Order: sequence, then structure tokens, then C-alpha cells
Amino acid sequence: MSETWQVRKRPARLERRVEFSDYSETREFLDRLADMSEREQNYPNLSFGRTYVNITLNAAADADEVDEETRRIARLIDGLIESAGE
Amino acid sequence: MSETWQVRKRPARLERRVEFSDYSETREFLDRLADMSEREQNYPNLSFGRTYVNITLNAAADADEVDEETRRIARLIDGLIESAGE
Repeated sequence: MSETWQVRKRPARLERRVEFSDYSETREFLDRLADMSEREQNYPNLSFGRTYVNITLNAAADADEVDEETRRIARLIDGLIESAGE
Repeated sequence: MSETWQVRKRPARLERRVEFSDYSETREFLDRLADMSEREQNYPNLSFGRTYVNITLNAAADADEVDEETRRIARLIDGLIESAGE
């Protein structure tokens, strides 16, 4: 599990911020993330501007803690970020 | 000016929420918005999940009120939403 994810409670979730050097990099990452979302049927809450993306992964609705499936999605996203050459 | 935009202060900005019936509609809208951003060199702050997008248009940095350029971008976005058949 990457230490770059912040674990938050109420509701249980993981958060990560990623910065990019320009908008085309941001957009490329968002496209990869969208492909992953459709493949995994998991849709993170995202907020972004020209050169940053904030990612929130909510745990399963009734979970008190971040569950393994949420951590698995976080690792997939870490992989996308690494392959983007950050 | 569409009444669907909320005018906010400190900092001066316009906000609009748009809902979609599924992720593919959301993604199509985000793609159109990204194309518009690059064409206009104006990058709204966006936050979105599977079936919604919240759009924030910040006024020029030193503006006390929402300026005409920001309203022009809002109208362009309204056009994208209408042509998406919402």
C-alpha cells in the first residue's frame, strides 16, 4: 500500500492528490483512470483542475474501515500513476 | 445567463451541478469540457463521480465580481450541456 494515500474516517475512505506539469498530462491520467473505472466498475470521486487531481475512494457503504477491495483499487491507481512517469 | 449557475463570493465564482444517467454520459461530457478547456485555455475546477459533475468557474484573480469572460465560459458550458441532450 502506497504511503501516499491518506486514510480517513467517517466515512471510511482513502484520499490521494496527484500533481502534473501541464493539462495534457492531467487529461491523459484522467483518461486512464476512466478506463480503469469502467473495467473495474468502480467510480472514484475525483476533483481536478488544470494540473492536479484529488482522488477519493470510499469504502463499501457499511464498512467501518477501508476494505481490501478499496485498497486493491488504490493499488491499481498507483500503477497508473507510476506508468504515467510521475 | 442560465439561472442554473450559482453566483458565489469570496472568491467570486460561478458554480453549476450537472447530473447524468450513467457513467458513459458523464465521461462524454467531461471529454467535451476538456476539449473546450484546451480551445479556450480556461480550466474550470471540476469535481465528479459516476453520474454527476460539479463545475466551478473562478473569476479573474483580482475581480470582486464574476467578470464577463467567466460568464462567457459559463455560456459555452451551457451549450455543451444542451447539446448533450440533457
